[in-house]
Amino acid sequence: MADMKLIVAGAAGRMGRTLVRIVHESDGCILAGGIEPDGSAALGQDLGALAGIGPLGVTVSSDPLELVTNADGILDFTAPEASVSLAALAAQARIVHVIGTTGFSPDDDARIEAAARHAVIVRSGNMSLGVNLLAALVKQVAATLDERFDIEITEMHHRHKVDAPSGTALLLGEAAAQGRGVTLAEKSDRGRDGHTGARKTGDIGFVSLRGGTVIGEHSVIFAGQSERIELTHRAESRDIFALGGVRAALWGRGAKPGLYSMKDVLGL
Amino acid sequence: MADMKLIVAGAAGRMGRTLVRIVHESDGCILAGGIEPDGSAALGQDLGALAGIGPLGVTVSSDPLELVTNADGILDFTAPEASVSLAALAAQARIVHVIGTTGFSPDDDARIEAAARHAVIVRSGNMSLGVNLLAALVKQVAATLDERFDIEITEMHHRHKVDAPSGTALLLGEAAAQGRGVTLAEKSDRGRDGHTGARKTGDIGFVSLRGGTVIGEHSVIFAGQSERIELTHRAESRDIFALGGVRAALWGRGAKPGLYSMKDVLGL
Amino acid sequence: MADMKLIVAGAAGRMGRTLVRIVHESDGCILAGGIEPDGSAALGQDLGALAGIGPLGVTVSSDPLELVTNADGILDFTAPEASVSLAALAAQARIVHVIGTTGFSPDDDARIEAAARHAVIVRSGNMSLGVNLLAALVKQVAATLDERFDIEITEMHHRHKVDAPSGTALLLGEAAAQGRGVTLAEKSDRGRDGHTGARKTGDIGFVSLRGGTVIGEHSVIFAGQSERIELTHRAESRDIFALGGVRAALWGRGAKPGLYSMKDVLGL
Amino acid sequence: MADMKLIVAGAAGRMGRTLVRIVHESDGCILAGGIEPDGSAALGQDLGALAGIGPLGVTVSSDPLELVTNADGILDFTAPEASVSLAALAAQARIVHVIGTTGFSPDDDARIEAAARHAVIVRSGNMSLGVNLLAALVKQVAATLDERFDIEITEMHHRHKVDAPSGTALLLGEAAAQGRGVTLAEKSDRGRDGHTGARKTGDIGFVSLRGGTVIGEHSVIFAGQSERIELTHRAESRDIFALGGVRAALWGRGAKPGLYSMKDVLGL
Repeated sequence: MADMKLIVAGAAGRMGRTLVRIVHESDGCILAGGIEPDGSAALGQDLGALAGIGPLGVTVSSDPLELVTNADGILDFTAPEASVSLAALAAQARIVHVIGTTGFSPDDDARIEAAARHAVIVRSGNMSLGVNLLAALVKQVAATLDERFDIEITEMHHRHKVDAPSGTALLLGEAAAQGRGVTLAEKSDRGRDGHTGARKTGDIGFVSLRGGTVIGEHSVIFAGQSERIELTHRAESRDIFALGGVRAALWGRGAKPGLYSMKDVLGL
Repeated sequence: MADMKLIVAGAAGRMGRTLVRIVHESDGCILAGGIEPDGSAALGQDLGALAGIGPLGVTVSSDPLELVTNADGILDFTAPEASVSLAALAAQARIVHVIGTTGFSPDDDARIEAAARHAVIVRSGNMSLGVNLLAALVKQVAATLDERFDIEITEMHHRHKVDAPSGTALLLGEAAAQGRGVTLAEKSDRGRDGHTGARKTGDIGFVSLRGGTVIGEHSVIFAGQSERIELTHRAESRDIFALGGVRAALWGRGAKPGLYSMKDVLGL
Repeated sequence: MADMKLIVAGAAGRMGRTLVRIVHESDGCILAGGIEPDGSAALGQDLGALAGIGPLGVTVSSDPLELVTNADGILDFTAPEASVSLAALAAQARIVHVIGTTGFSPDDDARIEAAARHAVIVRSGNMSLGVNLLAALVKQVAATLDERFDIEITEMHHRHKVDAPSGTALLLGEAAAQGRGVTLAEKSDRGRDGHTGARKTGDIGFVSLRGGTVIGEHSVIFAGQSERIELTHRAESRDIFALGGVRAALWGRGAKPGLYSMKDVLGL
Repeated sequence: MADMKLIVAGAAGRMGRTLVRIVHESDGCILAGGIEPDGSAALGQDLGALAGIGPLGVTVSSDPLELVTNADGILDFTAPEASVSLAALAAQARIVHVIGTTGFSPDDDARIEAAARHAVIVRSGNMSLGVNLLAALVKQVAATLDERFDIEITEMHHRHKVDAPSGTALLLGEAAAQGRGVTLAEKSDRGRDGHTGARKTGDIGFVSLRGGTVIGEHSVIFAGQSERIELTHRAESRDIFALGGVRAALWGRGAKPGLYSMKDVLGL
């Protein structure tokens, strides 16, 4: 099978340049174009030069329609308005659209669902293979072990992060709560400090570490009588979101039109 | 439902005394007797005193038949000959028989299978809930992630352990190999030292740490491009085997006659 | 040199029985007696039987004076009043007094210092070798690395612990603050939750995990640009306090009278 | 004090470009030039453009003499011949010379020592702050704890690494051996596999994990009766060598001429 021809939306942005590099490095796909809005200073520039990997002979364009006609898929971590438009184009061209964009309105959601009647759309707020797999494991373990096993979720991120717990920690907490058939908001135990009393049975604890330049580490601990199971994810670079996006695109090439998540990509 | 009446086979041995203590501490079951062979110095002694938890008013007997008649289940981490006999008694009495004994011959296996037509028999070489659950997760992750993720298995045990890798590490390696559809013997990479060359794609690596009084820790690492998933089990005491045995017995109370494993107990 | 003859104060209590067992198991020392107050139900009982290790032929006494005359050292994790009295006896007999008791008044302190003119007194609120060594390392690393390295302290304990952070975590935080020449109270960052803003330079963060039957684990993380140093202590059982007490006694045998800490025992 | 003017030797190579970027990002110093040999294709090019951080207005030169005259220090991770020449220039100019180069002959060593009579030379085979600090801690802990604590050293690196254990693991092993006053070669226990027998008292164990894209993680475990101390270093990027080099240069600005190591820079 010929390499899958992929277009990167928002190709001159931070995530876009990472996507360009990862597409170039990955087997089974080839960089077919990059999109930036009209007026972008990057228009006409070489995508590889922008990405810091040397010229690739493919330049930035502001005409998605032309690009889509000759492509097999779009990688899109941009903004809701742009993503909704691209979904419509992907539906026309019947190609794959990988959407890592977040912040959609209910109306946006409806348009994406409509587009998914003709396009293969893979959409996720977190494209990392590992995090999605970890969430599935957490749900399963929480469903298997009862409340004699206490659940604690730890995360560490760099010193510049301004909120706690991380979105991924909360996603893992939701997975644990689903596995147990409880509501996270009722079981969440955060900010332990001072005279806390004994741990409440069934609680799901969260702690957040901050320091240095840590990209992101998450552990879910199931602590029972005399034994513990710990499920950990360590991100070494932000490349993992682009890597997951490319994997989603390659997976989507063989799929029927529809709206998919990373769980589908992982076969979970 | 009344508490499940449990008998401990080999009640004066190290594992037997642990089982007595754990049955006494556990909800949903009650200690109904303890067995030692004819001639044992422990016959007639109080099971609780032997277990170091104070007298329980239940003494050691050498007559399993009498005990079995008034019990709901047998916990048995003894030797093949004794376990095969107890299986036959359990079949007669139609009760639960939890077998943690190892080293059975094919002929022993056949007798246990025969007994399982009338008894609920749960049999496992490793009764720990956590280890069995970890093995199931490892198989699943190995099946989900392809060979772009390298698998490494680490274990640490106390300084007196004489073999490496541990049996549990090998069990986890088998689970990984099954998940990938390969044969462990062909993929196993052990004893890395010196000029090894680059890691071979698809290998399953093992490393063994020894030191101090560590009961047993195992991690399976899936290391991919820019991210890792680590699945870890930490045993804090050898009680986990007795705890798993009691849980197996309680689970077996509601089951149909048959031969089961810890996977059944865990619902995996 | 003959084995050091050691007496255990409060020999029938939980810590006392652990001390009896550890003295019996340790090289270089021998159990010479055990003390309980007048009226204790344990008087006259065998120390080994009380400790669950079988009879040792040494019984519990309520007369410390007689015991002290024939001993080389006292292991004492009891209460302030008893410890102050024993310190005076140790001074008379010019023997070693290891004090793990906490909660002394300033007046008690003065009496212990007076006794230390003639006795070798080793006193510490935490007799674990490992924790004391870790605290010394933390102070040193905090003094070596500047505020470009963020300090985070994590601890995990069993589900029954009612306060957070643990006393040991605070002790490690004090060591870090001393190393940096700052006041912990001004730099402590606890209970991170919600919109916290970016981490403040120089803060010392604490997080507390609770679950299962974990004896006690502590890590101090120094997170800088692109690298981390983590210093971890894992307690596998509460024996470590008794083990440290026995090591302190053996060390004290060769020392001049004076008041010492575990840092002296460790030679730090 | 004005920013320290730093020159990067081998400025167009992989390490040189990293040094250019780190100098540019660091406080207290400024990029004053970059050196490449005559005939290099990079001569005359902008150092920032080469380093992928945008033009800095400083170009690559092949004339070290001119650069040295106007600089306060040289960062040099090149080759022995080049480093020996630069050391002589640094001595003439009485500036700081940070040498990360390895593979010197005894004759080279003598020339560097001679240059260090007039230049401040900081030389190390591993410029990482964290690794050097960890080695110092390991030596200290090994000297404090006796052979009742078993020492195990673990390391993990990416799948392309061809030798085991890593150079850094061996450096940490040497530190442990020095702390104990033993010879590493006589105590090293590598490649544990099969029927090993119980661990030998005093051995220093090594295990090597390989997988994915791990930059480098090292742990030294001291495992005693019922407790463990673990000292861990995690490298998140290869920047740490350049960061350590810059820190060494800044430290050297205030030092007297002489030959120094990273221990001096760390004040250990």
